[in-house]
Amino acid sequence: MEMNIALLPGDGIGPEVIAQAVKVVKAVGQKFGHQITFKEGLVGACAIDATGDPYPDATHEICAASDAVLFGAIGDPKYDNDPKAKVRPEQGLLRMRQKLGLFANVRPTFTFPSLVHKSPLKLERVDGVDFVFFRELTGGVYFGEPRGRNEQGTKAFDTNVYSKEEIVRLARMGFEAAQKRRKLLTCVDKANVMATSRLWRETVQELASEYPDVKVEYEFVDAVAMRLIQWPKAYDVLITENLFGDILTDEASVISGSMGLMPSASLGSKVKLFEPIHGSYPQAAGKDIANPLATVLSAAMMFEYAFDMKAEADAISDVVNLSLAEGYVTEDIADGGTAYKTSQVGDWLAAKILG
Amino acid sequence: MEMNIALLPGDGIGPEVIAQAVKVVKAVGQKFGHQITFKEGLVGACAIDATGDPYPDATHEICAASDAVLFGAIGDPKYDNDPKAKVRPEQGLLRMRQKLGLFANVRPTFTFPSLVHKSPLKLERVDGVDFVFFRELTGGVYFGEPRGRNEQGTKAFDTNVYSKEEIVRLARMGFEAAQKRRKLLTCVDKANVMATSRLWRETVQELASEYPDVKVEYEFVDAVAMRLIQWPKAYDVLITENLFGDILTDEASVISGSMGLMPSASLGSKVKLFEPIHGSYPQAAGKDIANPLATVLSAAMMFEYAFDMKAEADAISDVVNLSLAEGYVTEDIADGGTAYKTSQVGDWLAAKILG
Ligand SMILES: CC(C)[C@H](C(=O)O)[C@@H](O)C(=O)O
Ligand SMILES: CC(C)[C@H](C(=O)O)[C@@H](O)C(=O)O
Repeated sequence: MEMNIALLPGDGIGPEVIAQAVKVVKAVGQKFGHQITFKEGLVGACAIDATGDPYPDATHEICAASDAVLFGAIGDPKYDNDPKAKVRPEQGLLRMRQKLGLFANVRPTFTFPSLVHKSPLKLERVDGVDFVFFRELTGGVYFGEPRGRNEQGTKAFDTNVYSKEEIVRLARMGFEAAQKRRKLLTCVDKANVMATSRLWRETVQELASEYPDVKVEYEFVDAVAMRLIQWPKAYDVLITENLFGDILTDEASVISGSMGLMPSASLGSKVKLFEPIHGSYPQAAGKDIANPLATVLSAAMMFEYAFDMKAEADAISDVVNLSLAEGYVTEDIADGGTAYKTSQVGDWLAAKILG
Repeated sequence: MEMNIALLPGDGIGPEVIAQAVKVVKAVGQKFGHQITFKEGLVGACAIDATGDPYPDATHEICAASDAVLFGAIGDPKYDNDPKAKVRPEQGLLRMRQKLGLFANVRPTFTFPSLVHKSPLKLERVDGVDFVFFRELTGGVYFGEPRGRNEQGTKAFDTNVYSKEEIVRLARMGFEAAQKRRKLLTCVDKANVMATSRLWRETVQELASEYPDVKVEYEFVDAVAMRLIQWPKAYDVLITENLFGDILTDEASVISGSMGLMPSASLGSKVKLFEPIHGSYPQAAGKDIANPLATVLSAAMMFEYAFDMKAEADAISDVVNLSLAEGYVTEDIADGGTAYKTSQVGDWLAAKILG
C-alpha cells in the first residue's frame, strides 16, 4: 500500500523523537512491503520563528493532503508566562485541530509491568489499569464565542458551547470502543451545574439504547478526578468534553508510571493525527536523551487507527516491549542499567523489526 | 462572648455528624465561657421535600442573622441522574453561596500520621503534605449568563465570566494565607486558552508586587492535575476559579488518605460557613456509623476563622488527635480495632474537652 505521512516534529525534543519514529515506520514499511512517503511541516514555536504563524498554511496543506500526521511536541519557554503575547504556539495546535477536523482525542492509559513501580500510586491500586479517554477536541470553551474582555478590560468572559451532533459523533466512538473492550462507558460531565453538560448527559442517554451491550455510567467531573486516583481499575472507556478531558487525561497520564511511553491519537473526518502525550521538554532538547517510545507507540497507533494494519502495529508494540524487557532504553527509565541515547534506541528498534 | 450559630444539617448523614459537632461546640462554650445559641434550618433534598425549595427564605434568614453557619451535607439519590429534574438540591447550595456572599472556599489538605497509610499514593509522596486551596465560589461558569439552549434544544451553552474585583478579593486571601505559611502561591488557570484565565493571571501578576515576600507561580490546570499526584508536597497555597477549584479540590481530597476528616470553610463578606468536604453518604444515613471528625474539625475552623479564637480551635483539634491516637473512632478508620458509633465519638470528644 502507498502511505503519505506528514511529519510535524515541532519544538524541543519533538524533532529527535519523531526521527526515531520515522526509522521504525520505515522498517515496518520495508518489512511489510508498503511504500511510505514523508513530508515535513513546521508547527509551534519554530513555525512562529520562521514564518510568524504557529500553523502556517503550507503546513496545513501538507497535513490535509496526507493520510496521517505524526506530531512531536510544541512549546517553548520563551512563550510561557506571557498572557499578553499576541502569537502563541498553542494557537497553532488549536487551529490545526479545528482545520483538520480532529474532533476526538483518544488517550489510552495502561501499564507496563517493568515500569509500574514508578507510579506515584500504590501497586495494588494501579497494576493492570487499562482505560481509554475519548476527549472531544474541537468544541467547548476552546472555540466558543463570544470570548474576550469588556471595553474597560475589567471583565473577561468565555463561552462553552456544544451541539448535539458534536456530542453524538464523539459518543458513538466511545460506545464502539466500549463494545470492543470491557463494555463499560462512563460519561463525565457537570450536569448538576452546566447546561452543556446536561445536553451531554441527555444525548448519551438517548444513544445508549442503540448499544444495549454497553453499560453506561454517568459521573460528575469532580467525582472522576477523585476516583481516577482511588480506583483507576474501575474504568474502561470514558467520554467527555474538551476542557474536562484536558484536565482528566493529564491527571490520568501520571498514574501508570510510564508517562514517557503513552501515545495518543486524534481522529476526525479524514486525516488522523498521532502524537506522544508528553510535552516538548525543552531542557532535554538536542541532547539525544529523550525517550522516543511514546512517539514510536504513537506510530503503532497510526498503523492501527489510520491504516487498519493490526500486524504492523503489533510489530511495533512487540519491539517496544522487547526494548523494555532487555533494558535497551533511555536514561529516564534505565533504572540503574545502561542508558542508551535516543538515536540508539531508534536504531535498535528498527533493526529488531527487520531482524 | 455571644455567638449565634446557624445549623444546616442537610441530608443523609448530615444530621448525625452535625449533632456531634454541636456537642463539641457546646463543650468548648462551657469550658471557655462563651454563650452559644443555635438555630436550625432546612437545606437540600429535605428542604425540597418540606417546602419545595432547596434553600428556603426562612433558612436564609437564619443564616444571614448568624455569625457562622455549620453545614452538614446535601444530596439524595432520588435527585441523581435526572438531568431534567426542575428542582435539585445543589441549586440550594449554589443559591446559598451566592446570597451569603461566600466567595472563597478554603480547602486544606494535610495528613494524619495514623491515617496516611490509607492514601492511594505511596507514603514517600504524600507523608507530610500540607497545602490549602482557595477556590473562588460565587463566580465563573456556575453563575455566568447567558446559559441554556437554543430554541430547538439542539445546542447548549454556558458562560464563564470573571471581573477583576472578584479575582482580587480571592487572590488577596491567598496571598495573606501564603504570608502566614510557606510563602508560596500557585495561581492555577488555563491562560493558554481562556480569556477569563488570562485576566486571572494578569490580575495576580499585578497584585504580586504588594506581597514581595510571597513567591508566585503560574501553572496550567492540566499540569496541576498531574503534579498534585506526583509531587503534592510542592504546593503551599493555591488559588483558582470556581470550576477548576471544584475539580482540583476533590482530586486533592483523596491524596491524604483521610477524606473523612477533611474540613472546609467558605468565607465572604459577613457570614462564614463551615462544612466537612465529604458528601451526604446516603447508604450510611441513620445508622450511627458515619465519621463525625470532618464536621468536628470544621467546627474548629469556625472558632479560628469566624471568631478568631485559636485556643478554642486548638482544644478541638487536640481532642480529635487524641481520639485518633487512642483509637476512639468510627468503623471507617477503626482498622481492626473497636469501632465506635458516631454518637459515642461525639460524646467522648465533648467529655475530653471538659475533662
Ligand atoms: C497546549 C494546550 C492548548 C493543549 C490543550 O489544552 O488542549 C494541551 O494541554 C493538550 O492537552 O493538548
Ligand atoms: C454539588 C455541586 C454543585 C458542588 C459544586 O460543584 O460546587 C460540589 O461539587 C462542591 O464542590 O461543593
